[in-house]
Amino acid sequence: MYVILVYDIKSDEGGQKVLSKTFKTCKKYLSHIQNSVFEGELSNSQIVKLQYELNGIIRKDKDSIILFKSRNERWLEKDMWGVQEDKTSNFI
Amino acid sequence: MYVILVYDIKSDEGGQKVLSKTFKTCKKYLSHIQNSVFEGELSNSQIVKLQYELNGIIRKDKDSIILFKSRNERWLEKDMWGVQEDKTSNFI
Repeated sequence: MYVILVYDIKSDEGGQKVLSKTFKTCKKYLSHIQNSVFEGELSNSQIVKLQYELNGIIRKDKDSIILFKSRNERWLEKDMWGVQEDKTSNFI
Repeated sequence: MYVILVYDIKSDEGGQKVLSKTFKTCKKYLSHIQNSVFEGELSNSQIVKLQYELNGIIRKDKDSIILFKSRNERWLEKDMWGVQEDKTSNFI
């Protein structure tokens, strides 16, 4: 299944650690395409695992995650403009 | 066409103004669902107008925008967890 994941981590005390953990966890499963946006192809069981891991990291009263799932990437077109994210980067 | 728009505005000198203009422009066309994420149903001509407006706002060497387009929203499922964005909010 083709997945787009977007996170929003509140930058307060403790936020940086949550952000770093969230980033690393997403990076294990997906490709980083913009600041807080990831995409990739995942099986249902990988999605469940990813959600389980992220649920243990984010603060439910402060942070949020949206996961868009499409059965078929063909149905999605993607336009990017402005600065392009370096897909091979491993920053943080 | 169902559209997901995600922006990433560099927060440097001048960034706040770009962010505010980008937000307002996106808000004219789409619903705000997370910090820098919008979604909505747009015609092709609306997409062209939105892209034209945003291209006049963002700094191509610093900021970036991704537009995901799907012919049919039925092919996209959406999971949100953590804090939910108030869709009626008009902050900024």
